[in-house]
Parts: sequence; C-alpha cells; structure tokens
Amino acid sequence: MKKYDIAIIGGGPAGYTAAERAAAGGLKTVLFEKKAIGGVCLNEGCIPTKTLLYTAKLLDNAKGAAKYGISVPDGVGFELEKIISRKDKVVKKLTGGVKMTVKSYGAELVEKEAVIIGESNGNIQISADGEMYEVTYLLVCTGSDTVIPPIKGLSEINYWTSKEALESTVLPKSLAIIGGGVIGMEFASFFNSMGVKVSVIEMMPEILGAMDKETSAMLRAEYQKRGVGFYLNSKVTEVSHTGVTIEKEGTTSVVEADKILVSVGRKANINRVGLDKLHIELLRNGVKVDEHLLTSHSRVYACGDITGYSMLAHTAIRESEVAINHILGVEDWMNYECVPGVVYTNPELAGVGKTEEELKAAGISYHVQKLPMAYSGRFVAENETGNGLCKLIMDDNDRIIGCHLLGNPASEIIIVAGIAVRYGYTVEEFQKTVFPHPTVGEIYHETLFA
Amino acid sequence: MKKYDIAIIGGGPAGYTAAERAAAGGLKTVLFEKKAIGGVCLNEGCIPTKTLLYTAKLLDNAKGAAKYGISVPDGVGFELEKIISRKDKVVKKLTGGVKMTVKSYGAELVEKEAVIIGESNGNIQISADGEMYEVTYLLVCTGSDTVIPPIKGLSEINYWTSKEALESTVLPKSLAIIGGGVIGMEFASFFNSMGVKVSVIEMMPEILGAMDKETSAMLRAEYQKRGVGFYLNSKVTEVSHTGVTIEKEGTTSVVEADKILVSVGRKANINRVGLDKLHIELLRNGVKVDEHLLTSHSRVYACGDITGYSMLAHTAIRESEVAINHILGVEDWMNYECVPGVVYTNPELAGVGKTEEELKAAGISYHVQKLPMAYSGRFVAENETGNGLCKLIMDDNDRIIGCHLLGNPASEIIIVAGIAVRYGYTVEEFQKTVFPHPTVGEIYHETLFA
Repeated sequence: MKKYDIAIIGGGPAGYTAAERAAAGGLKTVLFEKKAIGGVCLNEGCIPTKTLLYTAKLLDNAKGAAKYGISVPDGVGFELEKIISRKDKVVKKLTGGVKMTVKSYGAELVEKEAVIIGESNGNIQISADGEMYEVTYLLVCTGSDTVIPPIKGLSEINYWTSKEALESTVLPKSLAIIGGGVIGMEFASFFNSMGVKVSVIEMMPEILGAMDKETSAMLRAEYQKRGVGFYLNSKVTEVSHTGVTIEKEGTTSVVEADKILVSVGRKANINRVGLDKLHIELLRNGVKVDEHLLTSHSRVYACGDITGYSMLAHTAIRESEVAINHILGVEDWMNYECVPGVVYTNPELAGVGKTEEELKAAGISYHVQKLPMAYSGRFVAENETGNGLCKLIMDDNDRIIGCHLLGNPASEIIIVAGIAVRYGYTVEEFQKTVFPHPTVGEIYHETLFA
Repeated sequence: MKKYDIAIIGGGPAGYTAAERAAAGGLKTVLFEKKAIGGVCLNEGCIPTKTLLYTAKLLDNAKGAAKYGISVPDGVGFELEKIISRKDKVVKKLTGGVKMTVKSYGAELVEKEAVIIGESNGNIQISADGEMYEVTYLLVCTGSDTVIPPIKGLSEINYWTSKEALESTVLPKSLAIIGGGVIGMEFASFFNSMGVKVSVIEMMPEILGAMDKETSAMLRAEYQKRGVGFYLNSKVTEVSHTGVTIEKEGTTSVVEADKILVSVGRKANINRVGLDKLHIELLRNGVKVDEHLLTSHSRVYACGDITGYSMLAHTAIRESEVAINHILGVEDWMNYECVPGVVYTNPELAGVGKTEEELKAAGISYHVQKLPMAYSGRFVAENETGNGLCKLIMDDNDRIIGCHLLGNPASEIIIVAGIAVRYGYTVEEFQKTVFPHPTVGEIYHETLFA
C-alpha cells in the first residue's frame, strides 16, 4: 500500500498540470496515465493538428508567394510521410518534455491504468497494475473519446476519426467530413491545402457550433472559394464506401467521397475509472463539479473533458490549477467567461466571452463595434488576399463582454480580449492600451474608436 | 483668416490620430501635412519595412520548407522590382485609408507646409501657402529626420539612409550598416534574406541599444550564423566607395562594402515650424512637454518624435490621444512604462517595461523568471530551427515590471506583458489568465510558474 496526498488519474493537460502544481505546492503526488502522457491533446489532438496545419500554411504560402514578389518554380509539392513523421517528432519532443517537467517537480508518474477501488478510514483507494494506493485527495481527469454516431452503414466502412486522419500517409482523392465544428473545419483546412476535394456536412444552419455566426460565415465563404463544399442543415442518413447520403429539407442526395471523417463531437470518459465506487454525481454526460472543480465527494475533483463541459485543453489546464489551489487553500475559482475558443484554419478564427447570438437569446442588451482587419497596417502588409473582422461586444456600461476575430494571428491575440473580458474593462479604459505599431493587434485599438 | 479650434501640424501617426480624435470630440480641426500623409511611419518607416520583412520571411520559409515536408523545386528567388512595387501599393492603400478616415471624422486636411506666425488676442496664428489660420489650440508633431553623422568621406559617396534602402530595386553585393539599432537590424535582416553580404557596425558593446541584452545577444548570434558580420565596440573613422574604416580597441581595419547604410538615429524636426514664435521651450534635442504633452505654452502641445524622447509610432499615437483628451477635459496621462518596443527581425524581438540593465544601474532590487520558447508547444510545432526566450522581471512585491521576448510572434504578444506592466499585475494574478492552447503566448503562463 503506497500512500500519497493526491492521486491524479489521467495524464492529459489537466493531469500533468495538476501534478506539477500539486508537487510544487508540497503535496506528495502520483500521476497515473494508462496510455500516453499528454493525453489526446498532445498525442492526437491540439499539437499534431497544429503541426500539420502550420505545414499546410507553409505550402499555401509557397504556392501563393508570387503575389509578394517571390518567384517559386512550378512543382511545389509535399511528402506526406515526411510531414507525418515530423509531426510525430514534435509530439515525441513535447511529451518527453512534459514527462521531464512532471518528474522535475517531484511528482511520481505511473504509466499504468488506475481504477478507484473505494474508500477506507477516510482515505481513497486506487489500484494500478496490482499495486494499491491510498490517497487523501483524488483528481480525476480521464478526458474524452470521439463520439461515433449511430449512422447506418458506418460500422461497415473504414472511416476516419481525427486520430486516423492524423496518421494516414496516403491521401484520399475526396473526403467527406461529418460535422463542421472546430475539429471538422481544421481538418477541412488541412486536407484542402493538401489538394483533397473536401466536403463538410453539418446538421446546423452554420459551421463552428457556438462560435460567432458572422465570422463563421465569412470563414465558410473563404473555404467555399477554395473549393470546399458545404452542406448545411443536412442530416446524414447513411454512409457507404462511395459517399454520404444526406437529407436536407426533405430532399435526399449523396455527397461522394473516397473517405469519411467523423467529427461530431467528443464524450466524457466516465465509465472505466470507477466513479461509482465513490458515488460521484454526474450531470448530463459528465462529472458534476462546482466552481472549484470539486465533485459531490468532498475530496474528489474532476477537471477537463470529463466534466463534459468545455472540452478544451486550456480549460482543462486552468481547471486543474483551480482544483489544486482549492486543495492548497489558495483562493481561486473557475471563470469560463474568459476562456477563448480558437479555430486554427487559415485564416484563424477566435472568440472569447459572449456572442451576439447568446445575448439575443438571453434578451440581454448590448452593442457592437467592428472593423475589417484591413484597418491594421500590418494585416495589409502581410495579406495580399482575404479579409477579416474584429468585433467587440459591449454591455450597457460599455464594458467589453465579448470579442470575435477572423484573421491571422487571431489565436495569439484573442488573449488580449480575454483579459479585457476577465477584468471587465470599459471601452474608455481599454483605449489606453499601447499596442506596438505595426501589429495586427492594433485592430483592437482601431475598433475601440470605431 | 480661417478659424479653427485646433490646428495640427504634421500628418504622421501623431497628427492623423489627433485629427481623428479631436474631430470626433467636437473640435473644429485642421491638419497640415507638407509632404505625405502618414509621415515617415507609413511612407518610409514602419509600414514599408514590415512589408519588405514579411516578404523576406516568405522567401526564407520557402527556402527552408523541406524541413517541414514541403518540397520546393530548386531555384526559389525573387523579383525585387515586384517586391518594391507591392510595398508601394501597400503604402498607397494605407495612406489612402488614413486620408479617408481623417476626413470621415470631419477634420480638414490641408496638404501644405504650415508655419507658426505668432499669437494675437489669445489666438495662435498659422500660415500655410499664403493662407492664414487662427486657432485656439495647436498640436505640433513634425516628427524627425535621419541623423547624418559627420563621418569623414560620407558626403563624397552615394550612401543610403533607410529611405533609399526602401526604394532601391538593385541590390548591392555587400552592405555595411553603420548603427546596429532597431532600424539597422531590421535592414540587416531584410538584406541578409535577399542574399546580400551584410556587416553591422555598432559603437556600443551590444546591438539594439536599450533593449534587453540577453535576448539581443541571442538575436545577434542567430544572424551571425546566417552570415551577418558584427563589429561591436567599433567607431567609424572614415568611409569610402569600397567600405568603412573602423577603429576597435586602438586597432584600425576596413569593413569592405559596395554600399553603406547610415542608421545611427533620428533627430527631432524642431527648426522649420516656428516654435520660437511662441517661445516654446526645448529639452535636450526636442520639445519639452509634460505628462499631458503640453509644452511651455498653455495651449500648445507636442507629440511624437518632435519630443526627441521615444521615437516610436505607437508612442506618438498614444501621446496624441492624451493631448486631445487633455484639451477635451478627459482625464488621461502618458505612461511610458507600458510602451512596448519591437524589432521585426526573424525571429522578432520585443520588450516592455524595465530591463535588467536599467534596474541594476538604478540599484533597484528585482527577480527574473525565464524559459526557452521551446516550452510552448506551438513554438515547437512551428519552428524547426532557432530558439527563443521569455523573460519576466518582477519587483519585490512580485509585480511584473518588465518582459523581454525573442521568438515569433513576439510583436503580437508583447502587448499582454504591456497590459500586465500597466496594471501592475502580480505573478499570482497573472497566472490566472487563460491562454488558448496551443499558442506561443502560453509561454507567459509557463514562465509565470517557472
């Protein structure tokens, strides 16, 4: 029987961050990971997709360089095996780094599957590979899995989820993506750059789920120009080796494709870890937690995708810090209002805080200031084609409550709006921020005066 | 005699921003520009250099794409005439936009040289192209000019300043840059990418003047690897058609070069506008102003390079807003602590707030947390070569008082540290910021826990 102050089950962003913070805070810490440290994010999610998307951007830039006065001979291409093996190298480097960091803080890493056994004398018992562990606190962050919808014909074909799409060294001629959310659109972007004929099938009237509708529609129009086919308001009724049957407004048609990628969402991994042994309450499809990420059990926390709520790596990271702070007695709580969402297409799309759609639905009064990205000198200097948008949403006290951006590098500058939302800056206050010139970030400054 | 509430002399970033804000604030506004709206920044400074530097980055990326699995045929090159004409197109588009914006606010734009005549009945009198103007307030922002140092032989050769370097459609085989400050290093970066043999001659022991020494030295080492020659602690004693004679520690040598670029600094344009007519006090080599940018005259303001102080476009923009706010009775003052500085080399270097060097010199106690950029997953995903650094400087209350970054996109993310410095965030407070994952910006988050 090994004893620890805290056990963390799941070595994704929530788990490894929690292990570092807990050990740094003086807790005797053990982190269990059954498969690959870094979780979905590092191994088959954020990092590999962004590595591939950057490569695609380099390819697009090389092909489009003539507009800038660069002469690239005909015949720019790519070696997919090299691209994939470089992606694997990046993943290996980063997962190696995470392992090293976790250990450097003094946390113990056990690369085995752990399950909850129960509770005895106020201690929580965990078993991993035949070994028993007794801990005071438990943090469960076992993440999520791809949802496989019950579509007729799907089990008979060799479809992709994001995992397989990241590994294939052979390109299909055509690809139908079921689900036009963030993951679907990032893969649409990548395979479109690689020369694959891409179709995106989305059940809702617009792509990208809860993201701002105006910028989402602009992004869709951009990819439409590049040849991506969009089927909105379309329900998939059947799939086969040759395509996807969809139903739209009562009419049935077939979207032809060599390969199908399923990206309709992810579901919390709540079944295998033994939550029932501690009578942990669930809420909808995830573990129920409070603003400190505490579950219905007073010494059990849950962070990341397992809550079934935000499903973002950076949410998981922050949640795990809040949970460890709560254990350590440091005042902290989780604020989801200032968690940015990013789509790493080219151009990137990003948002934080409220959308117009949710404010309208809630009947909350607001006003908007917006400007095309071309009001930024640097954006003009760096973009011969395409446009973008900066949209700021203010409440009746002129406080910034939402921001939505389309245009590179939205992913890197959305944080500025995130800070404004977090601290409730007014337009007048935020106007005094000195952005370096020339930057794309200056678009905030311009928009604040628009 | 035309009457206005305010006259603004000089149509650079300070001038056009002031015209927009003044007119938006209800002041009857006239803006004078003798040469080209947008000033040095738009016409022969920030915007054209960044346009060229982005093109150079595209070239470098195309040449280095094989590392990422992109196959680019041999023979990548460029057409300098196209690069220069695209740069001109960008400048034209942006200056056109500025003109339109200024007018859209209702400010009058007079594209003539204006001079101060004097004061009568409490009004300030200005003359432009034979027309007289009488105004209540005056804002002088006539900018700066390149300093031409009294170097033996310089007047006999056809040297470049930044202006000519931006216009030449013929490349020299070799280029000696006198002055390794921001402008010198940006041109070193551009011409190095274009295949020119570049030498940088700097009088001080390190390049980049007052920027953080550690990151400056890292940047220098990177360019050294790419073939740029650096001559530090070197005084230029003479120039000729074939090179630059330098003296270093008593030893004289010659740096051979086809062309010489002079970039030793800029000096405020204080002579031609008639400041003496209103007895405006000077300080060192610029106009003396207070924290509201008010000069020694109670209704005359001066902003931008003419103060001889910060010499940055974004300082000028912010100063002009402070000045107009002061006129309009809106509380505001100029805080130089949170003005970022950026060097648009590749990688970019940026800093805000205090440097270790100035804190040491002032005997102020501080501590540093720093991490290599490779701790950011996105940085690793997007950078096969090169490294970078994130350095945060804290005071004894753990407040962030300085930040220095090396690595793309430092220019776009330095603002986050600028905001932290401005509001005096502590490390603990700043740790709670949710950066999207994966971004380079997350390096802040990692560094805060380092």
